[in-house]
Amino acid sequence: MPQNRQILLDNRPQGEAVASNFKLVTTDTPPLKDGEVLVRHHYLSLDPYMRGRMNDSKSYAASQPLGEVMIGGTVGEVVDSKHAKFAAGDKVVGMGGWQEYSVVDGNAPGMLRKVDTTHVPLSFYLGAVGMPGVTAWYGLVKIIAPKEGATVVVSAATGAVGSAFAALAKARGCRVVGIAGGPEKCQYAVEELHFDECIDYRQHPDVKTMSKALKDACPNGIDGYFENVGGYILDAVLLRTNAFARIALCGMIAGYDGQPLPMQNPALILVNRLLIQGFIVSEHMEVWPEALKELGTLVATGKLKPRETIAQGIDSAPEAFLGLLKGKNFGKQLVKLI
Amino acid sequence: MPQNRQILLDNRPQGEAVASNFKLVTTDTPPLKDGEVLVRHHYLSLDPYMRGRMNDSKSYAASQPLGEVMIGGTVGEVVDSKHAKFAAGDKVVGMGGWQEYSVVDGNAPGMLRKVDTTHVPLSFYLGAVGMPGVTAWYGLVKIIAPKEGATVVVSAATGAVGSAFAALAKARGCRVVGIAGGPEKCQYAVEELHFDECIDYRQHPDVKTMSKALKDACPNGIDGYFENVGGYILDAVLLRTNAFARIALCGMIAGYDGQPLPMQNPALILVNRLLIQGFIVSEHMEVWPEALKELGTLVATGKLKPRETIAQGIDSAPEAFLGLLKGKNFGKQLVKLI
Repeated sequence: MPQNRQILLDNRPQGEAVASNFKLVTTDTPPLKDGEVLVRHHYLSLDPYMRGRMNDSKSYAASQPLGEVMIGGTVGEVVDSKHAKFAAGDKVVGMGGWQEYSVVDGNAPGMLRKVDTTHVPLSFYLGAVGMPGVTAWYGLVKIIAPKEGATVVVSAATGAVGSAFAALAKARGCRVVGIAGGPEKCQYAVEELHFDECIDYRQHPDVKTMSKALKDACPNGIDGYFENVGGYILDAVLLRTNAFARIALCGMIAGYDGQPLPMQNPALILVNRLLIQGFIVSEHMEVWPEALKELGTLVATGKLKPRETIAQGIDSAPEAFLGLLKGKNFGKQLVKLI
Repeated sequence: MPQNRQILLDNRPQGEAVASNFKLVTTDTPPLKDGEVLVRHHYLSLDPYMRGRMNDSKSYAASQPLGEVMIGGTVGEVVDSKHAKFAAGDKVVGMGGWQEYSVVDGNAPGMLRKVDTTHVPLSFYLGAVGMPGVTAWYGLVKIIAPKEGATVVVSAATGAVGSAFAALAKARGCRVVGIAGGPEKCQYAVEELHFDECIDYRQHPDVKTMSKALKDACPNGIDGYFENVGGYILDAVLLRTNAFARIALCGMIAGYDGQPLPMQNPALILVNRLLIQGFIVSEHMEVWPEALKELGTLVATGKLKPRETIAQGIDSAPEAFLGLLKGKNFGKQLVKLI
């Protein structure tokens, strides 16, 4: 059996996460029992939710246990199988974690899924045609539910969720405005991701200037917002919401390091009769087939061209992850493991 | 035609509302034109939303214009009519404003509605079987939508909205916890309004102690919350919400005087996958018949025994209103005008 390099959570962040929270170890992969499948990971997905798991506090999911392999989505290839439904060479997506190989119970529902790489590159199953894409789909379709012509806004616009959000919203006839960090990302959002406009938050670092920028970019006000960040950007968006605007809340990266980020004027929820809904997409597995079908078609037809930032090798995962939390990635952050 | 005493909004509050914002004047009621109805008001309703109207800022409804009669719900009796559908002696509910008489266009939809006082006292059409009752109904039934056995919480528990909320929630098999100011109101909430428990916010004046009190009163957590107040009570409730809890936001009395009241930890919306929805009941007229029917039945069968605080005479309205904003009323605040 091959040697397996793994990254464990060694200790919890005190405030900001740092590289020394993680620990690289090498182990032997155990021999397969009946029903098990050995997968070699080609790509590991890095996602903001992982930062929340590193804390010990109450959250929507169990904390990442100390001394165990960090949780994470993976795509790869079956190299050995004692399960009738999987054979060597199958391309699969799963939750293999921050490691080069995983041994998976082939009978556990939803743990391992075969994918078709004819029209969709394998890595996209961790992004546009995976969890981030379905996240965008759920927030847009099930929470914001925009009418044609509505103006919708998304933060972290060039990320995996934001780029899928834009394609899905354009397909529904919306005006789509993104918020991203830096002129390069904003240019990319407009030119490649079909955003109507993109606001550089570095040029608008407070509620007042961001609110003004949103007013300019959204002359008819904001009907829907997909929140990935939290903090002053949310405050600025609330100031520009139309009556009955709907806000899907799926991430608050800005608050992961422990300090709560107040919402400055929640009375706007009443004034504008807003709906705000928090969600995590893994609790809505019933929508995945419909969402993945639409996302796969958008990719196959060239309407969704997600960008990827790829770090090389499992040992690069911690630094790549810390960069993701600071917005240093450009598009979906992956780690290539082969 | 009778003389009519009216209260106008003379100037806007600078911070807290004060009696000198209002002005009492006496006018003649104009002669009736064809289609018009002259109503003598028996009761004027005082409601927190009026404070919002006194401001010049953007809100969910137009500002109360200066120099005009203050907006307000009224019940009374037709004393003269040039409209075929109304006759002297009819009991009616409408939006007559802070004055003793009003002349109403009988053809304007929804402006004047005849009511039956056989089983429901006239004044109740301003409270339990009126706008506040329907407000409670909409928030509970359409937003919180509790399952049997769920724990629901309401602030301003002994007010017109809170007392109706309790009766409606008990009818749906919920555990109902109120929040009110002072031991007398809390005792009344439990003994007369069928709350399972009631928390005295004066004994719990900060997030930490209120959160502890909520934990004790809601051992299974909070599944639904009806917000009338805002501020630290909302923060404390959020800390005790269960996953997928739903919050109906219909008032933020605590913020009416201008200073925004931050929500300290909106990340809890994500952590607990909450739904928060602001609403005003006048935008949902389609539910009124169903809601009024249930509320009327609860009153007629003794399951909803709302309490009233009644000020005497139109000149007492400003002080009674300012008292309402400070929670000095006990139950529905009315002004008797006959």
